[in-house]
Amino acid sequence: MKYRALIAFLAISLLSTAAPAEEGMWQLDKFDAELFARMQELGLELSQEEIYSPGGEGIAYAIVNLGGGTGSFVSPYGLILTNHHVAFGALQRASSEENNYIEDGFYADRSEREIQAHGYEARVLISIEDVSDRVLKKAKGKKGVKRYEAIEDVIKEITAEAEEGRDVRVSVASFFGGMQYKMSTYFTCKDVRIVYAPPRSIGNYGGDIDNWMWPRHTGDFSFLRAYVALDGSSAEYSEDNVPYEPAVHLPMSLEGVGKDDFTMIIGFPGQTMRYRSSYSTDWSLNWRFPGRVKMFGDLLDIMNKAVEKDPGVRIKTARFDAMLNNSMKNYEGQLEGFRKAGLLEQKIAEEKEFTEWVNADKKRRKKYGNALPAIEKLYEEYSVHRDKQVIMRFAGFMNQMLGASGTIYRWTEEKAKKDMDREPAFMDRSIPRVKQRLEMIDMGYDEGVDRQFLRYFMLASLDLPEIQRVRAFNEMLTGYSGTDEEKVDALIDDLYTGTKLDDVDERMRMFDLTREELMKEGDTFIDFYAKVYPEFKEMEDRDEEFGGNISAVRPLLIGGMKEWKGGAFYPDANGTIRLTYGTVTGYSPRDAVNYSCITRLGGAIEKNTGEEPFDCPEKLIKLWEKKDFGKYEHGCFVDVPIAFLSTTDITGGNSGSPIINGKGECVGAAFDGNWESISADYMFNDKLNRCISVESRYILFVLDKFSGAYELLGELTIQ
Amino acid sequence: MKYRALIAFLAISLLSTAAPAEEGMWQLDKFDAELFARMQELGLELSQEEIYSPGGEGIAYAIVNLGGGTGSFVSPYGLILTNHHVAFGALQRASSEENNYIEDGFYADRSEREIQAHGYEARVLISIEDVSDRVLKKAKGKKGVKRYEAIEDVIKEITAEAEEGRDVRVSVASFFGGMQYKMSTYFTCKDVRIVYAPPRSIGNYGGDIDNWMWPRHTGDFSFLRAYVALDGSSAEYSEDNVPYEPAVHLPMSLEGVGKDDFTMIIGFPGQTMRYRSSYSTDWSLNWRFPGRVKMFGDLLDIMNKAVEKDPGVRIKTARFDAMLNNSMKNYEGQLEGFRKAGLLEQKIAEEKEFTEWVNADKKRRKKYGNALPAIEKLYEEYSVHRDKQVIMRFAGFMNQMLGASGTIYRWTEEKAKKDMDREPAFMDRSIPRVKQRLEMIDMGYDEGVDRQFLRYFMLASLDLPEIQRVRAFNEMLTGYSGTDEEKVDALIDDLYTGTKLDDVDERMRMFDLTREELMKEGDTFIDFYAKVYPEFKEMEDRDEEFGGNISAVRPLLIGGMKEWKGGAFYPDANGTIRLTYGTVTGYSPRDAVNYSCITRLGGAIEKNTGEEPFDCPEKLIKLWEKKDFGKYEHGCFVDVPIAFLSTTDITGGNSGSPIINGKGECVGAAFDGNWESISADYMFNDKLNRCISVESRYILFVLDKFSGAYELLGELTIQ
Repeated sequence: MKYRALIAFLAISLLSTAAPAEEGMWQLDKFDAELFARMQELGLELSQEEIYSPGGEGIAYAIVNLGGGTGSFVSPYGLILTNHHVAFGALQRASSEENNYIEDGFYADRSEREIQAHGYEARVLISIEDVSDRVLKKAKGKKGVKRYEAIEDVIKEITAEAEEGRDVRVSVASFFGGMQYKMSTYFTCKDVRIVYAPPRSIGNYGGDIDNWMWPRHTGDFSFLRAYVALDGSSAEYSEDNVPYEPAVHLPMSLEGVGKDDFTMIIGFPGQTMRYRSSYSTDWSLNWRFPGRVKMFGDLLDIMNKAVEKDPGVRIKTARFDAMLNNSMKNYEGQLEGFRKAGLLEQKIAEEKEFTEWVNADKKRRKKYGNALPAIEKLYEEYSVHRDKQVIMRFAGFMNQMLGASGTIYRWTEEKAKKDMDREPAFMDRSIPRVKQRLEMIDMGYDEGVDRQFLRYFMLASLDLPEIQRVRAFNEMLTGYSGTDEEKVDALIDDLYTGTKLDDVDERMRMFDLTREELMKEGDTFIDFYAKVYPEFKEMEDRDEEFGGNISAVRPLLIGGMKEWKGGAFYPDANGTIRLTYGTVTGYSPRDAVNYSCITRLGGAIEKNTGEEPFDCPEKLIKLWEKKDFGKYEHGCFVDVPIAFLSTTDITGGNSGSPIINGKGECVGAAFDGNWESISADYMFNDKLNRCISVESRYILFVLDKFSGAYELLGELTIQ
Repeated sequence: MKYRALIAFLAISLLSTAAPAEEGMWQLDKFDAELFARMQELGLELSQEEIYSPGGEGIAYAIVNLGGGTGSFVSPYGLILTNHHVAFGALQRASSEENNYIEDGFYADRSEREIQAHGYEARVLISIEDVSDRVLKKAKGKKGVKRYEAIEDVIKEITAEAEEGRDVRVSVASFFGGMQYKMSTYFTCKDVRIVYAPPRSIGNYGGDIDNWMWPRHTGDFSFLRAYVALDGSSAEYSEDNVPYEPAVHLPMSLEGVGKDDFTMIIGFPGQTMRYRSSYSTDWSLNWRFPGRVKMFGDLLDIMNKAVEKDPGVRIKTARFDAMLNNSMKNYEGQLEGFRKAGLLEQKIAEEKEFTEWVNADKKRRKKYGNALPAIEKLYEEYSVHRDKQVIMRFAGFMNQMLGASGTIYRWTEEKAKKDMDREPAFMDRSIPRVKQRLEMIDMGYDEGVDRQFLRYFMLASLDLPEIQRVRAFNEMLTGYSGTDEEKVDALIDDLYTGTKLDDVDERMRMFDLTREELMKEGDTFIDFYAKVYPEFKEMEDRDEEFGGNISAVRPLLIGGMKEWKGGAFYPDANGTIRLTYGTVTGYSPRDAVNYSCITRLGGAIEKNTGEEPFDCPEKLIKLWEKKDFGKYEHGCFVDVPIAFLSTTDITGGNSGSPIINGKGECVGAAFDGNWESISADYMFNDKLNRCISVESRYILFVLDKFSGAYELLGELTIQ
């Protein structure tokens, strides 16, 4: 499911109003004895401190946040194991038609040969601290935008204080829909490099066809390395940097896993919505997901046609293509899962029962009685402009010239403010990343496709009811004549002819201008953005109004539900570090079909058609035919294991997380959920939901027998 | 796999040159003690005589040959259990838009309400006799057409003698590619009626999507009844007829099957080719199957377009549509299976080894040395005109006006001859069926589609190299001008305007004319056929030349292989009665996927989309939701079993065969093979090949709880 793409792309970050969680994305700082006993029962041999204790040296300190994906240190020299698809963006940016690392893979046998992983950083957890009291005190009694801004401001304060004078990065997340707030403090390695990636035909074997599917035969792993300045401080890429030396790293297991083995995963799951109301569910099920499926399909068509005309475009659109395909399949799967399970009907029935329980008691009625009606009203109001908003949101995201002009234009506004008064995305601490993204545009930019995207969104706006259309688009088009298509095409011609934003030097130069200087440039895209800007602002205001209000009522609903249901309640995933555990277990997807929990190399060969995405490398086939499995053979069959299923509870953001056995050894890297778990963000089903990981022995086998990556193997602790 | 369609349609009956068999389509008259012991070991409780003995009363006498499908007597009053898809043609012919028995199902609670099953007859086996000596004596020393005709003549003699003065039907089949010949004698019930069929949404649940697939949830069963004259003699349909009273009928089991249970099937498998040479395999793999897939796809397109324009056409093309879809999927599956298994490579390697063994001994070289080179040469010669032949063959089969004119035209030639000198298809004994088929054309005829088919084949002929084109087509087209398409369209307009063959009375009138009278009619299609006829004759001559020659050399190859390999050798299926046994067993289709051997009603509900072919009837869903399973619940789970897998070895013609437990009770009706067994006609694989049957309890459950067919239930012996 390519969790990196998901989290980076899908989450609308309304004040990260993450809802409460369940079924096992456990908080490390809230580890409970009963839970620990259950883990021991299943096969955990470590003590609680060997997993995590504040300031301790548990294995949790080997886990790194890769920004939408997870990794783990597997050597004393900053070597990180993660997924091939998590490192994919770095591979793409480093690739050219001559050096196609996506297609051919990459291996640096010496550190000098490692390539910069553009756009990547690795964050290592230092501490977790509850800041609820401080945040909620400021928010108390406030509503809408005011509440939103009060919370935003106090979070900025907390962040600034915590980062002040320290080489750390802090982020504050809300739990239980805004009932609690916690601050995570990280050390950030800003210089990350690519060490090893298998060829696409191993790292993405099965491609989009097998994505989310079981049985799976994908070697979805890569190795990165984190670097710091010579003095150990966080530093941007420099030849003088040295490998980061983590306090803890995980050994790679040569034993791998067998059926029923205990496993646990520590990582950074992004967002689950298991406590969302029926109104939120209805929003997703009946508007958000179907709309996205349609839109992404259209955008993919645009890219496919461009690639058909000119195969060279492919490398440039690869990242968008992977994202949209993955997300579309994800949404389709969720819709299927929701409908099959009757999620909405379930939610409605549950809320009916809950409401009866609330109404049965006067005190409860007073405390929780307003939660659901308030949520209903908020969604109703919020939906009025949603069709327009989605067009604007995706136009700004998919059309890179509009995105770039927006970044530059807004920065000229924000830079005039005091740091603490700016939008979080434009505070000093974020500016290096903003600049980096602006620089990196060229690595995935094709003008033809960019034009087509803009055209798509402009025509989509024209299809809306008069009152919902993007006013600035209408205004710009009045200067042109002909059919809607002709007018849009002519406007786009003018926009692309009159802009210099496709030149990286010009972009970076304009980034440093004042607002006044910028407007004097007369750049068509800057002028265009200036016209649309008020509407973007309106959209943000609406988001903040909704976010502020919902953050006040969601805790009521979740709190009420908690009281009603009793027992343990775990917060929804919200990008903070979590532990999930389970066992290696197959499942039955439907009547008379049973899936085993481990796949083998022979199964990859069985799928081989010689054509992408089922084009097994010849060398791999030869190894299998000669049964040249070395010490990587599975004890239960004469073959190398590739992937396995476990009942661990993961979601987007967990991609690349180490999956760890009872002794604390890495037995693989989690990279996907099965098709049936695609709706698990809303509803967990222990009979059907499974996590898919690539097994440690397949990783080692490919490094050894396929790639001859002996230097890398030598660096790993294999046991 | 809809075996009826297969056998009726696919077999090119070159002197039914069936090759040798294996893996268990055992001859009842050659039952071997070792085999019997093995069956007992697996769970057979019957004695050999209780299965079959010449003139005895074994359960084999409950089996009926339905002409391309099998059935079994399940009551003392001629009630026959078979597959829904075996009875499909009868349902179609009886259906109209008002009374759509395909869609809605059918039930006659009294015999007066039963409907004639047009085109069906039920043959009951009387005896099997070896006639090899007599046939081979006549063929000895002859080659090509001469050999073919010598064999044809002696078979006619044998048949005529055996049928003379007796109310029986005799057919002689070749075994081991022509090494042996055996005569089967049947009593024929010519009056067959429809008693019960479930609605399409049960009888063909899953449709073409699930066809050949497992897990399966199709209630593929129907009931027919055989009638005879009051004196017990064979008689055409008449209101005065009475139900046939079989000597033996099978009880229906209320116990059904569980995992690992013994099962056996007695039926009439049509054709397997497990002993064919690499040249025959190459022919199928590289020419015959790919060509058919293309052609059938084109013909299906034609029908689909016609149905799109006018949904009323659907009922008329349903039979062709089912046949072509089924056959196309079959060929595609076989091609996939062959390629996966490397069938051709295997054959070539085996023949190489065989040739070495042959050449190692002078005597052997003399006896078998020429077999393979001779077969190679025969296929080479036979392939010269194959592209033309396939066009003519299918034009005559798919285009019903051409087919009808051919039947009438040829009959005016044949009727002038003595019965024994005629082509077997036009001997007196066959004429009633010939007339019946001619009458029935209207039941599945749409002029628009018929025109399109002719157009397709004419254009296909024009696409061939000059020398291979159908000469008569060329000649007819010279009178027209314009593009090829325009000429063909104009010719077709004239053909359909000038014919009366679309009127059943006219067809039947012309059937009775002499050649001279017929040609005076000036019917455009008759004149057209007269022009093509010489080329049909050439085609038949080529077929006979090949058939005669190959029947002389195939026994050499098979005999040699038998001597080389040693051990038991079983003849290929050839339409004669056979027994196969095995156990109820699942399988693993690919890495990490395991199929259970029994499906349940819950699995059908799981597949339900509400849309054809997955449109479970509401009533069935309700029954399942209420768990109203009555006495039909499976002992191992709370649900009704639907279908099950067994290792029994079946092929086209076996459809509708009873599957029988160790006590001789009917536990279901075999109706399909799994996808992996689609290439089993050429090569059996006991790990992957499975037979799919509908379970007796599902049949009884549907009759009872769904249809309330209490009269029918009362007639069955249920135990």
